[in-house]
Amino acid sequence: MAVNTRKKISVIGAGFTGATTAFIAAQKELGDVVLVDIPQAENPTKGKALDMLEASPVQGFDANIIGTSNYEDTKDSDVVVITAGIARKPGMSRDDLVNTNAKVMKSVTQEIVKYSPNTVIIVLTNPVDAMTYTVLKESCFPKSRVIGQSGILDSARFRTFISQELNLSVKDITGFVLGGHGDDMVPLVRYSYAGGIPLEKLIPQERLDAIVERTRKGGGEIVNLLGNGSAYYAPAASLVEMVEAVLKDQRRVLPTIAYLEGEYGYNGICLGVPTIVGGNGLEEIIELELSADEKAALDRSAESVKSVMNVLA
Amino acid sequence: MAVNTRKKISVIGAGFTGATTAFIAAQKELGDVVLVDIPQAENPTKGKALDMLEASPVQGFDANIIGTSNYEDTKDSDVVVITAGIARKPGMSRDDLVNTNAKVMKSVTQEIVKYSPNTVIIVLTNPVDAMTYTVLKESCFPKSRVIGQSGILDSARFRTFISQELNLSVKDITGFVLGGHGDDMVPLVRYSYAGGIPLEKLIPQERLDAIVERTRKGGGEIVNLLGNGSAYYAPAASLVEMVEAVLKDQRRVLPTIAYLEGEYGYNGICLGVPTIVGGNGLEEIIELELSADEKAALDRSAESVKSVMNVLA
Amino acid sequence: MAVNTRKKISVIGAGFTGATTAFIAAQKELGDVVLVDIPQAENPTKGKALDMLEASPVQGFDANIIGTSNYEDTKDSDVVVITAGIARKPGMSRDDLVNTNAKVMKSVTQEIVKYSPNTVIIVLTNPVDAMTYTVLKESCFPKSRVIGQSGILDSARFRTFISQELNLSVKDITGFVLGGHGDDMVPLVRYSYAGGIPLEKLIPQERLDAIVERTRKGGGEIVNLLGNGSAYYAPAASLVEMVEAVLKDQRRVLPTIAYLEGEYGYNGICLGVPTIVGGNGLEEIIELELSADEKAALDRSAESVKSVMNVLA
Amino acid sequence: MAVNTRKKISVIGAGFTGATTAFIAAQKELGDVVLVDIPQAENPTKGKALDMLEASPVQGFDANIIGTSNYEDTKDSDVVVITAGIARKPGMSRDDLVNTNAKVMKSVTQEIVKYSPNTVIIVLTNPVDAMTYTVLKESCFPKSRVIGQSGILDSARFRTFISQELNLSVKDITGFVLGGHGDDMVPLVRYSYAGGIPLEKLIPQERLDAIVERTRKGGGEIVNLLGNGSAYYAPAASLVEMVEAVLKDQRRVLPTIAYLEGEYGYNGICLGVPTIVGGNGLEEIIELELSADEKAALDRSAESVKSVMNVLA
Repeated sequence: MAVNTRKKISVIGAGFTGATTAFIAAQKELGDVVLVDIPQAENPTKGKALDMLEASPVQGFDANIIGTSNYEDTKDSDVVVITAGIARKPGMSRDDLVNTNAKVMKSVTQEIVKYSPNTVIIVLTNPVDAMTYTVLKESCFPKSRVIGQSGILDSARFRTFISQELNLSVKDITGFVLGGHGDDMVPLVRYSYAGGIPLEKLIPQERLDAIVERTRKGGGEIVNLLGNGSAYYAPAASLVEMVEAVLKDQRRVLPTIAYLEGEYGYNGICLGVPTIVGGNGLEEIIELELSADEKAALDRSAESVKSVMNVLA
Repeated sequence: MAVNTRKKISVIGAGFTGATTAFIAAQKELGDVVLVDIPQAENPTKGKALDMLEASPVQGFDANIIGTSNYEDTKDSDVVVITAGIARKPGMSRDDLVNTNAKVMKSVTQEIVKYSPNTVIIVLTNPVDAMTYTVLKESCFPKSRVIGQSGILDSARFRTFISQELNLSVKDITGFVLGGHGDDMVPLVRYSYAGGIPLEKLIPQERLDAIVERTRKGGGEIVNLLGNGSAYYAPAASLVEMVEAVLKDQRRVLPTIAYLEGEYGYNGICLGVPTIVGGNGLEEIIELELSADEKAALDRSAESVKSVMNVLA
Repeated sequence: MAVNTRKKISVIGAGFTGATTAFIAAQKELGDVVLVDIPQAENPTKGKALDMLEASPVQGFDANIIGTSNYEDTKDSDVVVITAGIARKPGMSRDDLVNTNAKVMKSVTQEIVKYSPNTVIIVLTNPVDAMTYTVLKESCFPKSRVIGQSGILDSARFRTFISQELNLSVKDITGFVLGGHGDDMVPLVRYSYAGGIPLEKLIPQERLDAIVERTRKGGGEIVNLLGNGSAYYAPAASLVEMVEAVLKDQRRVLPTIAYLEGEYGYNGICLGVPTIVGGNGLEEIIELELSADEKAALDRSAESVKSVMNVLA
Repeated sequence: MAVNTRKKISVIGAGFTGATTAFIAAQKELGDVVLVDIPQAENPTKGKALDMLEASPVQGFDANIIGTSNYEDTKDSDVVVITAGIARKPGMSRDDLVNTNAKVMKSVTQEIVKYSPNTVIIVLTNPVDAMTYTVLKESCFPKSRVIGQSGILDSARFRTFISQELNLSVKDITGFVLGGHGDDMVPLVRYSYAGGIPLEKLIPQERLDAIVERTRKGGGEIVNLLGNGSAYYAPAASLVEMVEAVLKDQRRVLPTIAYLEGEYGYNGICLGVPTIVGGNGLEEIIELELSADEKAALDRSAESVKSVMNVLA
């Protein structure tokens, strides 16, 4: 047996986001990658994996990438990313979306847990707060090992818009987003900076408000432009940020979706909060002092998450 | 005016290959990227560019990326990559494909030349040998500034298969492919190595033959698996390899499609040969001694290219 | 002439900091590097450059690196970094140090300007505020093209200590340091964060005070440990951060030493302040609102810089 | 306990090569780094480690780096690199050098084995063939877990000179060196290429001979230029190449110093040969067919290694 073996990353769902996640993880040599989709999509999944692998000699990365519909291939994964599920289609009710994807989460989770009982699971499927909850419950994992992604993406969008507004490097813009994904998100402008300088000192309030609003609608902006489909580059990059933090035990401070047990006054829901992500997965939840406005916004967000969760019953 | 400005890369055609090329070039901070497609696709093009840009704060790269249908935005590009054109559809004759894409090349080239008269153009559109020729003629550029891509991709596939066969790092496998893209390619096994060791010494001839054959059909293998569409990760990585060699004046030894004026005994055609790619574009053509078999294979490849070129008349 | 040529970086002074700066810049393929020292040190300078160059096939970077004592080799540099000069030795008065290094700055600057009249100069030599001033005056360059380094290094030390204190990734710690280098520096704790969260909320005041104090003495800590010599890894990394911001026109928000004309109430001195560094060099000075305490500390810093400058007369 | 923990790399000997090895390994986020030297050098070792660590926020790598003289800190290292020992000084006999360094190897190895019984050891100390043998015997490790470095460095030099000769990217030059380090090395020109093209076809024989000769004397060239000390950038990069191959289980084809048991007709000596390096350390020895000349040169190299080994008795 090898003294040193590669890490193993499984990505469930080989759509654009899943595939791009696999590709970026491989580019970074974070480990070998298993891209999984349903049996009917097995060939395209294999095709995408092979195409990526064929980029490896050119880009110079050593990472095996395979496509499969057989969960046995995910055995002993160090991290599993879930991107599977359907997108909301015109005419589909929210409840239908929730119930369909919850069913997907349950079956996917059973397979993951069967083959990788010690893995860390990262959830992207929408509605992500509720789906993170569903995966957590179904897995019976400790809450440290089931994390949802939304805040890295939301704050990446916020940071992009700020970078463009100020014509400054994205490297120096930090941003923080709490709460649910989408309209309910709570961008914490107070905790967002350019080169450490609070944004309020650099950007007039009305421009800031417009940028916050654009961030809230950031996913929709891409959907509207694409016409057919939704964003996948930035979501994939966000997922890989979490994968890397776990695999390299980086103890990053990242906004992720965590199961709350009293933090911020909420209990038994999954919600976007500031967390520390490291080798154990979600290692800590950071409790920020919130202003009354911020708390009210977070409450609205939590309510919205709960109303989705009620659908799950 | 800035003392130091960023390089500018335009990618014509915002399909999967074009978009992935834009993304990888941006990840590497090779310059700012302009992704161009036809007016009817302007919104999706903008959407893809914005999605990539929103990945930049997470991945930490500084590169502006825009989507557009207006060639004015490509003004003063340092490199332009052409991925535009249609793919061959079932029932479409080869001549129809050639003529349609030649028309696309001509109009695209006129626009490129109008705004970036000193740029280097890299062509990917199929049939790539003939399309490189078309762009060269239409542009009236010196032959150093119009280069086609096929050999990097073909040899990347070859190297991938060898790496898998020997269970060795892709970093140590080199491979060389001459001639046309596709069935006519001429993989030079003699010039291919694992850690410097000729492959013939490491792999039995019949396995090598099978790998060569798989390489020849490498594009088709992906097409068949995907069911709908063709490879884009490895093609994009290959294009970026050339873009980087030009922008960073690296003088790489790369198999590319060059306009031949007597080299290898051919005149007035574009064909895949070993070249040196640097700041001037295609800086040199390297003439290898070929065995009788290799020369015969290259002749077949050249004949095939010529027969496509005849369609262009 | 090549359509695309590499950037050119000259590093004056081939001691540990200069050499490490050259190496990191080459690793990042920022351009070709010319390492310059006095004629008596020409051979060791050539030896270091050759040793670095011999690392390039292994690390996979394309950058020529040469050692020289002939300033003609720096011709047309895009950026020049000055690390030349002597370190303060036991028994040497501060005034002797200042005058000796000022003399070095003047002769070095004349040579730089002679061969690269349009370059951007980055100064590291101590006392760096006064030496930046000396180079600026001697060069007759606009103030945008002469920048001193101190704040990136000081804040890197601060960020390191915070990262260790909180056991969090360095990627998520930002810190800001104003004023002079060394005892006079003004760490702006208010503008320093872990994952966007103000440090005061995460670290008890007395620990923060201790970390600020350790940061102030950060250079001395290394000097004391080494016993013979001073820090060079972190200083070199800091210099390359500035070089990269200029060459890639990144518009980074960085604390650098700028010539002030009224900003923060000072005139005609060079002092560490928040700036925007891009393709033009120092593109903007950012004026933060300071508390009374912070302003008082900055005043002390400015006084100290002035007293050194008086020595120059 | 963390689900995912960082790899751990210990570097014994905190001189220039050891320190640079630590730095490059940290830059690449290969794991946490422990830099070890003798108690008398403890403070400078701590100083170097701290200086490197302070570069981490700027370069953006997460890796703890500590300096120590206590081997307990190396506990459970995944890889240990040995750079400790003295350099040959004027007037010192070779036998004195051998015996002194052998003594160092023995005591260092005992400490390594005590705390990391399952680690992979990589040896750089000269005379490296004999020192690799000494470490192997003292450790009682299987031969897969003790590897010497010389061929990567030697071939890096060869590749550098070829790159300069042909004005081509180092990325496309491969080279192969067998046998002992130094005058006895056997550069296999036959197995060396530019872009896959055998060097004999690109460079006249007399130039090639001169380059081979320069490669043989490559270490001495740097020593002569530096005047005081020897090369460390390229040696460190070469060591990290091996560390990375082991930690990431890359199965690289690398020329390393292996313990031979019949391969190439030698028994019971350590000699530079082509090998496969992966997660288990030295996984395979590749036996090339050699020409009579090459075999004769390798014999001379082996004789020279044996004569050094005889000193060890």
